[in-house]
Amino acid sequence: MKANSTILGALLASRSQATTNITNSSSAIYKDASYSASDRAADLLSRMTWTEKIGQMGGVRRLLGSDLSFNQTSYDILAEYQNGILGFGDNYNLASDVLPFANAVREQQINSTDLGIPYITLTDSLNSIYLLGGTMFPPSLSMGASFNVPLYEQVIGVIRDENVAIGTRWVLSPELDIAKEHHGGRIGEMYGEDRYLVGEFGTAYVNTMQQLDDEGYVKVACTVKHFVYGQSSGGINAASQYGGLNHIMNEQAMPFIKVVRDAQPKALMASYSAVDRVPMSVNKYLLQTVLRNTIGFDGVIMSDAGAISELHTLHAVASSSTNAALKALKAGLQLELSPGQPAMFPNLIDSANDSAVVDLVNTAVSQLLEIKFQAGVFDQPFPTAETLNATLRKTSHLEVAKNASEEAIVLLHNDGLLPLANTNSSKVAVLGPLAELLVMGSYAPNNSTQPLHGRPFLESLQSYLGSSNVDYVQGVDLTNTTDSSGISTAVLAAKEAGLAIVCLGSVSVLSEDGAAKWRTDGEFFAHPSLNFPGLQQDLLDAVLDAGVPTVLVMTGGQGFALPNSTVARTSAILHTFLAGEYTGEALVDTLYGVVNPSAKLPITLPPDSGATPIYYDYLPSDAGSYWSWPILDRANPPFKFGFGLSYTTFEFSAADVSVASGSSNVSVSVTVSNTGSVVGKEVPQVYFRQQYTTIETPNMQLIRFSKVELAPGEETTLEWTIAHEELGYWQDLEWTVETGNFTFWIGSSSREDDLQAFSVSL
Amino acid sequence: MKANSTILGALLASRSQATTNITNSSSAIYKDASYSASDRAADLLSRMTWTEKIGQMGGVRRLLGSDLSFNQTSYDILAEYQNGILGFGDNYNLASDVLPFANAVREQQINSTDLGIPYITLTDSLNSIYLLGGTMFPPSLSMGASFNVPLYEQVIGVIRDENVAIGTRWVLSPELDIAKEHHGGRIGEMYGEDRYLVGEFGTAYVNTMQQLDDEGYVKVACTVKHFVYGQSSGGINAASQYGGLNHIMNEQAMPFIKVVRDAQPKALMASYSAVDRVPMSVNKYLLQTVLRNTIGFDGVIMSDAGAISELHTLHAVASSSTNAALKALKAGLQLELSPGQPAMFPNLIDSANDSAVVDLVNTAVSQLLEIKFQAGVFDQPFPTAETLNATLRKTSHLEVAKNASEEAIVLLHNDGLLPLANTNSSKVAVLGPLAELLVMGSYAPNNSTQPLHGRPFLESLQSYLGSSNVDYVQGVDLTNTTDSSGISTAVLAAKEAGLAIVCLGSVSVLSEDGAAKWRTDGEFFAHPSLNFPGLQQDLLDAVLDAGVPTVLVMTGGQGFALPNSTVARTSAILHTFLAGEYTGEALVDTLYGVVNPSAKLPITLPPDSGATPIYYDYLPSDAGSYWSWPILDRANPPFKFGFGLSYTTFEFSAADVSVASGSSNVSVSVTVSNTGSVVGKEVPQVYFRQQYTTIETPNMQLIRFSKVELAPGEETTLEWTIAHEELGYWQDLEWTVETGNFTFWIGSSSREDDLQAFSVSL
Repeated sequence: MKANSTILGALLASRSQATTNITNSSSAIYKDASYSASDRAADLLSRMTWTEKIGQMGGVRRLLGSDLSFNQTSYDILAEYQNGILGFGDNYNLASDVLPFANAVREQQINSTDLGIPYITLTDSLNSIYLLGGTMFPPSLSMGASFNVPLYEQVIGVIRDENVAIGTRWVLSPELDIAKEHHGGRIGEMYGEDRYLVGEFGTAYVNTMQQLDDEGYVKVACTVKHFVYGQSSGGINAASQYGGLNHIMNEQAMPFIKVVRDAQPKALMASYSAVDRVPMSVNKYLLQTVLRNTIGFDGVIMSDAGAISELHTLHAVASSSTNAALKALKAGLQLELSPGQPAMFPNLIDSANDSAVVDLVNTAVSQLLEIKFQAGVFDQPFPTAETLNATLRKTSHLEVAKNASEEAIVLLHNDGLLPLANTNSSKVAVLGPLAELLVMGSYAPNNSTQPLHGRPFLESLQSYLGSSNVDYVQGVDLTNTTDSSGISTAVLAAKEAGLAIVCLGSVSVLSEDGAAKWRTDGEFFAHPSLNFPGLQQDLLDAVLDAGVPTVLVMTGGQGFALPNSTVARTSAILHTFLAGEYTGEALVDTLYGVVNPSAKLPITLPPDSGATPIYYDYLPSDAGSYWSWPILDRANPPFKFGFGLSYTTFEFSAADVSVASGSSNVSVSVTVSNTGSVVGKEVPQVYFRQQYTTIETPNMQLIRFSKVELAPGEETTLEWTIAHEELGYWQDLEWTVETGNFTFWIGSSSREDDLQAFSVSL
Repeated sequence: MKANSTILGALLASRSQATTNITNSSSAIYKDASYSASDRAADLLSRMTWTEKIGQMGGVRRLLGSDLSFNQTSYDILAEYQNGILGFGDNYNLASDVLPFANAVREQQINSTDLGIPYITLTDSLNSIYLLGGTMFPPSLSMGASFNVPLYEQVIGVIRDENVAIGTRWVLSPELDIAKEHHGGRIGEMYGEDRYLVGEFGTAYVNTMQQLDDEGYVKVACTVKHFVYGQSSGGINAASQYGGLNHIMNEQAMPFIKVVRDAQPKALMASYSAVDRVPMSVNKYLLQTVLRNTIGFDGVIMSDAGAISELHTLHAVASSSTNAALKALKAGLQLELSPGQPAMFPNLIDSANDSAVVDLVNTAVSQLLEIKFQAGVFDQPFPTAETLNATLRKTSHLEVAKNASEEAIVLLHNDGLLPLANTNSSKVAVLGPLAELLVMGSYAPNNSTQPLHGRPFLESLQSYLGSSNVDYVQGVDLTNTTDSSGISTAVLAAKEAGLAIVCLGSVSVLSEDGAAKWRTDGEFFAHPSLNFPGLQQDLLDAVLDAGVPTVLVMTGGQGFALPNSTVARTSAILHTFLAGEYTGEALVDTLYGVVNPSAKLPITLPPDSGATPIYYDYLPSDAGSYWSWPILDRANPPFKFGFGLSYTTFEFSAADVSVASGSSNVSVSVTVSNTGSVVGKEVPQVYFRQQYTTIETPNMQLIRFSKVELAPGEETTLEWTIAHEELGYWQDLEWTVETGNFTFWIGSSSREDDLQAFSVSL
């Protein structure tokens, strides 16, 4: 605390000295919207004191308590030297309640400072605005499951407009990490296991969010994250990752490369992880040589929350707070996220005479100010309550949310029981703890036990079938591992109804959520076991043992390991992942055939809890001749990436892959027909592999996909052009494109049985 | 096959042409033992045809069938172009039966060729000679558990002498891989999870095996392996590994660095793995820049069995067999292990006019020939049946084996039940499938079901207590997952006896072994689950449920996950790992207090099947603030590296860590006293950590250990000097030694409770 007082004193002294030098002229270039953002930033920078500059490199993330209480004292202190960004926290307040406070703080900042530099509001934005009252969409994993990029653009368009309405002009999304570590708790925040899928969804997010408004301002600036992350030791949130430049460039960096090239995100967040023993917050090689120079990222690089502090306290690669701040700055960090105080960057105040530090700070502040100018926070009026109320949850927004929920549920197995017949007389036993919860993931302001919007599956089914036709028995607690006393009652109910819908899964929610006590998933959580938590599998086994026709509904932002014996005895299996506020309705509609399921697995499900890592795009030697998992075939798990069933059937015909003479483009085409009796959506997928490469490359890789809707009897022909240049790989930081033989596969999933293979030479 | 005929034709043609140029003079330098090995090699090389050179770079590994049948046709073909090395296979033949064949082939090779270059016999040698009839020791993991390096030197001395007696002058050991991937099947072949422990044992192996005989010849040349290996994807044998030079240098390469520096092994084997997508057999960077230039290895680099072929057939980084051979040669491979034919290096025959290839071949052959000269195979007489019979299994050898078995069994938990009282009237129920097997690991010529030497635990106990006092019920099959019908009989037996010894575990054996059908461990195997295979845990639970005092005996070359509830209810737990031919006797003697257990865990046992990776020397951020495995504490698993109990108690007193003024050496001393009532052995261990480092370094690392035997009341003072230079770490291929504060810990295991901490500045 002593150190902070000293820092604060220095800041205040520096500030009062500087005041006299400032020209507070309304004719200043930085106040004139006719100048470019970079000219305005340069002008403003030249007027700023050292203290003011350091102040821009941090901010306040938690302004309010959950009861809307405002911590003025804390705010005043923080505002002095952490005044670049502003969050709304606590995010369990209603947007309409928060707006007046937010605007008051914004106004105070502008009016009470010499230069009147506004905050920019920066929040998470995974499946909605980061306050109660917005439309709640499925998070990334479920949108990845939709395989529907145009739909996702609609989703992000809504979230963007709702963000603008509350004055959020910069978000901490999208998350471009690749979901290949099943034990990690953040899979639900990622789009899936495939680099191409992640890149496509990430590009859609950034391009939609950063769309320019009518005045040419960026609606909402984006932060791609976390560079690099996703394969941490033991699946633990901030644990270390092995390095390996070929691995990183061909896998974890690929979505970043795509999004930087095609959508120019304004910012990027370095991950918590130590990569090859160098924490990312001091990893100059990956941030400069790789990210800046090779990938060409030119936006702001920020820390993850508290990460600079941890250089000293956790990784022990910095001997003090000041040392941590200096090391992070020199490695490339330009903005500190620090929800917990003290922050580290204010320690830079003592380095005003270090020219290297000054240069880095000037560059950082200039880039930060440019984002503010580009996002219009210097020029545009504060958001109003009227616009907010007219925008949040408007009918068109809810329609998009409903579509998203409906396209996010994967049907994995169906012996013909689904769709269920809707007769008033038929009883259904609903079992399992997930039936009562509406789980939307750990970055959704929501209460799983009593959602402000949306209904759990149980309620939805009761209103669809009538309460008297639904017999609900929880059976087991979500995580309790000893109390199996409720199973027999559940089995009785199942027998009596003659049909059981067993709702199992895991919970990833915010700490304020009513279901937080059951968490095994979400940020900060890792799950050593990939089976259902607690005694949930025992409940399912007991129902199956009783011979009752059973639909298994899985819920959670993760893959669960399903024993073969479970799959064989279950009539139908669905995975809802985290399907947004309309999960309940969408699930009922799917079960009863009102909606035809069309989602595909964004991650391969492990065939056994210990059978990891597992994903479709393994290296050949990872499933080669000298290997064995007893019984299990790593190359052919039953529920593989891209797989999902429909109530209709699709035929892939006239598939063709060719290279025109003299061309270096591959032409791929296929005709897809709906050969069943109901309308449905299919996701044709194209994979490729080069026969021989200089370094080992994956068995196959996704290179195109598309989602098409077809009425019964209808057909459509899809055509893609793939440039030879796209078929390369990174080798020692060089993108390598080789001639040779290539195999292309076309089909409805990554499973061998679902694909047709073609060979071409390039 | 066509390709081979062509190659063979070329070889034969080349050979007959060359014959006329050869001076078959007995005065040739290479035949004169008074010249140095390098002079002799240079002379011989100058006389060799291209074909003869290529022939030295491969060999025959399997000469005989299991019935001693000799495949002359195959042999003749192979001998033409694969005549550098010779193995004995099939290794289930008796050494005494094989010797005449081996000598005949040796003689034929020398007498029927122009230059008379002898084969060198090269075999595996993990825990014995690689034929039946030798003394059978515990393999590496169990010797690591002994923490007794002087004892290990005796063990390797015996194996060396038995190898010389059969004419094996070059072995494919030691394995220096670090046992940190619990799912892998080869943990039993490794010394343990710690780099320092592995380095100490590896150095002892090589220095002992490569000792010079009275004539100055190397008794047995060694091959350190596998560079780099041990952390493959999913634990699968030849699967890929992530790269990361800091990780590799500070972890996987460290034992190689130590052994190369302190023991100069004659050869090194590249691993199967692709490291950061570059298969080791073409990984020029790791083989040349790192291994040759940075580490300074100057011996022969060989392939793993079939690995060059897999460059083409599996990794697909070579477009043909010839391409694979050329790429491997150019990356640095000099000898091909190829138990399956066709081999790849014979394809080099076509590159006689490629000067780069010629240079590499000349260097390789020169180095290979030097090993032969150094090991005396040009000069010393063939081994005789008389010497063989007088050497194998002589009394002094068996005594060492018994000592090794006794020091390899770890006592993990004891509520006071052990040692058991030996009264003739007391009955014991022995349960579980491992009681009947003598498992010695996948490189031991042995039959687990009917061992030629040694007895399973059940037999040993029957002879100790009398058969009538031992009631054996298998209870469950080793791997069957459905048949639990035998459990009730087992529980009845346990109740009747009032004491149960439950023997559970896994099997790693050669394919010819009677227990091979139950394999879940060993090379080619990986275990997704770390629980006991099959229904073994159910058997144990049922016995514990019945309230019978129970001793759990684990067997297998791996760590098993023990639920807390199991540990809490079990009276005593021992892990025998793979304790050699005297496992049965040593276990009986340990249970009954004839032997006081003194082994320590060479690997940390996972607290849950999914709680991996887990080891004591984790990076701080791997178990830091933003992480969680529900319930489990990654930093403090109950059974941690270095831990093991005794029947006596030891006190550590007068511990001191200091740095003399002006010195850069750390002096560590401690007095260890036996404060109990029986003689026992303790393993004082010293760990260290630097407070702040430039890159993240592990939480603590072992830097010294020693094993001491003390009578009741006896004490001894141990003193170590540790140079500052030893306390550095590798950063970007530079060994970095920093000043600063260091913590040292002294105690009986890596568990916090067992350690005293000291701080010094350097």
